[in-house]
Amino acid sequence: MKTRAAVAIQAGKPLEIMEVDLEGPREGEVLIEVKATGICHTDEFTLSGADPEGLFPAILGHEGAGVVVDVGPGVRSLKKGDHVIPLYTPECRECPSCLSRKTNLCTAIRSTQGQGVMPDGTSRFSLNGEKLHHYMGCSTFSNFTVLPEIAVAKVNPDAPFDKICYIGCGVTTGIGAVINTAKVEEGSTAVVFGLGGIGLNVIQGLRLAGADMIIGVDLNNSKKEWGERFGMTHFVNPKEIGGDLVPYLVDLTKRGADQIGGADYTFDCTGNTTVMRQALECAHRGWGESIIIGVAGAGQEISTRPFQLVTGRTWKGTAFGGARGRTDVPKIVDWYMDGKIDIDPMITHTLSLDEINKGFDLMHAGESIRSVVVF
Amino acid sequence: MKTRAAVAIQAGKPLEIMEVDLEGPREGEVLIEVKATGICHTDEFTLSGADPEGLFPAILGHEGAGVVVDVGPGVRSLKKGDHVIPLYTPECRECPSCLSRKTNLCTAIRSTQGQGVMPDGTSRFSLNGEKLHHYMGCSTFSNFTVLPEIAVAKVNPDAPFDKICYIGCGVTTGIGAVINTAKVEEGSTAVVFGLGGIGLNVIQGLRLAGADMIIGVDLNNSKKEWGERFGMTHFVNPKEIGGDLVPYLVDLTKRGADQIGGADYTFDCTGNTTVMRQALECAHRGWGESIIIGVAGAGQEISTRPFQLVTGRTWKGTAFGGARGRTDVPKIVDWYMDGKIDIDPMITHTLSLDEINKGFDLMHAGESIRSVVVF
Repeated sequence: MKTRAAVAIQAGKPLEIMEVDLEGPREGEVLIEVKATGICHTDEFTLSGADPEGLFPAILGHEGAGVVVDVGPGVRSLKKGDHVIPLYTPECRECPSCLSRKTNLCTAIRSTQGQGVMPDGTSRFSLNGEKLHHYMGCSTFSNFTVLPEIAVAKVNPDAPFDKICYIGCGVTTGIGAVINTAKVEEGSTAVVFGLGGIGLNVIQGLRLAGADMIIGVDLNNSKKEWGERFGMTHFVNPKEIGGDLVPYLVDLTKRGADQIGGADYTFDCTGNTTVMRQALECAHRGWGESIIIGVAGAGQEISTRPFQLVTGRTWKGTAFGGARGRTDVPKIVDWYMDGKIDIDPMITHTLSLDEINKGFDLMHAGESIRSVVVF
Repeated sequence: MKTRAAVAIQAGKPLEIMEVDLEGPREGEVLIEVKATGICHTDEFTLSGADPEGLFPAILGHEGAGVVVDVGPGVRSLKKGDHVIPLYTPECRECPSCLSRKTNLCTAIRSTQGQGVMPDGTSRFSLNGEKLHHYMGCSTFSNFTVLPEIAVAKVNPDAPFDKICYIGCGVTTGIGAVINTAKVEEGSTAVVFGLGGIGLNVIQGLRLAGADMIIGVDLNNSKKEWGERFGMTHFVNPKEIGGDLVPYLVDLTKRGADQIGGADYTFDCTGNTTVMRQALECAHRGWGESIIIGVAGAGQEISTRPFQLVTGRTWKGTAFGGARGRTDVPKIVDWYMDGKIDIDPMITHTLSLDEINKGFDLMHAGESIRSVVVF
C-alpha cells in the first residue's frame, strides 16, 4: 500500500513529506493507522545527526496513537479497530528481562530495532524500491506503520489521539521515573532539573505520589508558571541565587529536625552532565536518590567523588520511565481520562503533517512544550 | 587514670607505646577496657597522612572488643561487666537519620566525632597535660577508652574478644554491604573486586545470602584459595585473561536463557576509582547494582557514561555495611557463635600492643588478612 509520511532523507535536512510504499503486516505484526504523533527531542537528536546510531533514510517519530487496521498471522492480543499506542520499548513477557521483574527493558527485539528493521530483519517501508529504515520500532511520522504485536499497547477507545500520543513517550517517561524508578513516597522532598516536557511530567508524577516539596530548577523564569501549574511548590533559577546551586538546594530542603538537608529524590531532565552531578550532590546524605532521565551527548561522562555514594546517595537512570509498555501505558491513559493527570495544557501546538518541520522549529526556539502532528 | 596506648604522635611516623592519662566517663559515657583490636586500612590511611581530615596527636584504632568497667551518670543501656564492641557509626535512635529507616548514618555526634573529641567537645585522653585526639569515636589502640553510650554495642559474653573485634569494622562492612545495602537475593550472580579482608567478608555474605555465582577478582593469584575458603565460585586475575576485564566478566555471567550477561550485584573493595567504574559497567543491564565499599584517595573521582545508568544499572555506596551498630552488630556476633559465618581464619596474626607497628608492616607487605592486637 501507499502511505503519506515525513521522511528523513539525510541528517541535518528538514523532513520531506511524500508518499512511500508500505508492506502489510507479517507473522506477529500489526498495521496501524497513526492518528496523531508528538515531536520529541529524541527525533531531533537523530535528525540533527548527533545520534551516532542514527540511520538514514528513515521514517522518524516514536510518540504516536492510532487504530489497528490489519493484523498478521498469529496475532492474538490485538484486533482490527483497537485503539493503540506504539511502544519503542516492547514488552514480550517472555525474555529474561521481562521475567526478571526488575526492569522494563525487554530485549526480545532489541538488535533488529537498533538496526532500523522489523524482527525478521527486513523493513516494511520503501521508496522507489529502496529500503527506508524504521525508527525506534515505531515510525509514527507515517500515516500508516507496521509494528510487532509485542510493541503495541491497547488503550481506552474513548481517549483522544491528539492528547494520549504524548503518553507514548514524554508523559510516561516523566511520571514513570517518579513512580516506577524512584518509587517516591508521600511526604518526600524532590528537585527537578529542567522544566521542559519531561520535567513537567516528573512534577505531576511527584504531585500524584504525594510529595511535600517539589522544587523546579530552570534557567528560564517563564517556566515558573508552567511548573506551578503541575504541582511545583518552589522555583529556583540558578542564575539568580547569587551562589553555588548545590548548597542552595541543600539549604532549601532542610525541614523540621533535619538540619542536614538535601532532597529525598532528584531528577535530571536536561541531558547536561554537569547538571546530572549537581542533581546527585543535592540528594540527601544517607538516602537521597538521583535519577538520570535526560540523554547526554555522545561520549559525555558523568563524574563525582565516590564519597557521595559511600555516604548514602544512589545514582540511577531510567528509560521510558521504567514502564512496561503493554501493562502500564493503558493505566496512564486511564489516569488521564479520570483526571488524575493533566496533558492538554502541555500540547501547546497542533500541526498538520505538512507543517511537521515547523514543530522542530518551535522546539529549537523553546516556544513549545509539545507539538503534535494530527493526520 | 593511666592507661597504656599506642599513640600516633604525627603523620607518617610509627605509633609510640606509652602511658597516657584518661579521664573517667561523663554524663552518657562509658569506660571500656579494650581486650582486643584489629588493625584496619583506615587506621593506616590516617597514620600515613593521606587522610585530609586526620588529626594528630591521636589514639587510633576503631575495630575493638572489650568490657564495660564504669558508666557515667544517665547511662541506662549498659552496665559494668557488659561485653561490648565500640561503634564508629553510632546509633542514637532519635536523630532524623536513625528515624528515617533508610540509613545507618546516625548524625547525633557526627561533628564532634570528626573533630576528634567527645560529644561535649572535650577529649578524655591527654599526655603531660596536652590533649590527645580520639579517633573515629573509638580509639581502640588504648587499653582503656571512653565512648558515648550510643556508640557501644552490647554483645554475647561468650564470644572471644580476639575474633569478634573484627566485627567492629571489616566483617560488618563486608557482610552488611551484601545484606543491608545490596539486599542480595538467593540465586544471584555477583562479582567482588579485591579479595582483602573486606572482599572476603563480602564473599561470605554472598554465600550466606544464597548467591549462585560468586566471582572474585584480584591481581594476586594467592587470593584464589582465600576466596574459595569463604564461598567464591570463580576466580579472575585481570592480568591473565588476555583482554578487557568488563566484557570478560559480562561473558562469564551469561546463564541459561540470558545471553546479555552482567552480574546482578558487584562490589568494589579496592578503593581504586578505575576498578569502581569496571564494577559498575559489568553489572547487568536493566537491574545490576554496583556497591562502592572501598575508600578512594583524596580528590579522586569516579566517572562513567550516563547511558550505563539510563539502561538500568544503579550505583551505590555503603559505610559500615549499612548496619545499625547497636541493633545489627550483636546479631553478627551471634552468627559467628552459631557458625553461620567464619572469622578465625581471617585473623592471620595476633600481636601484643608492643608489636602493633609490626601489624602495619604486615599490612603493607600484603602478608596479613587481619592482624589483631590483644591487650
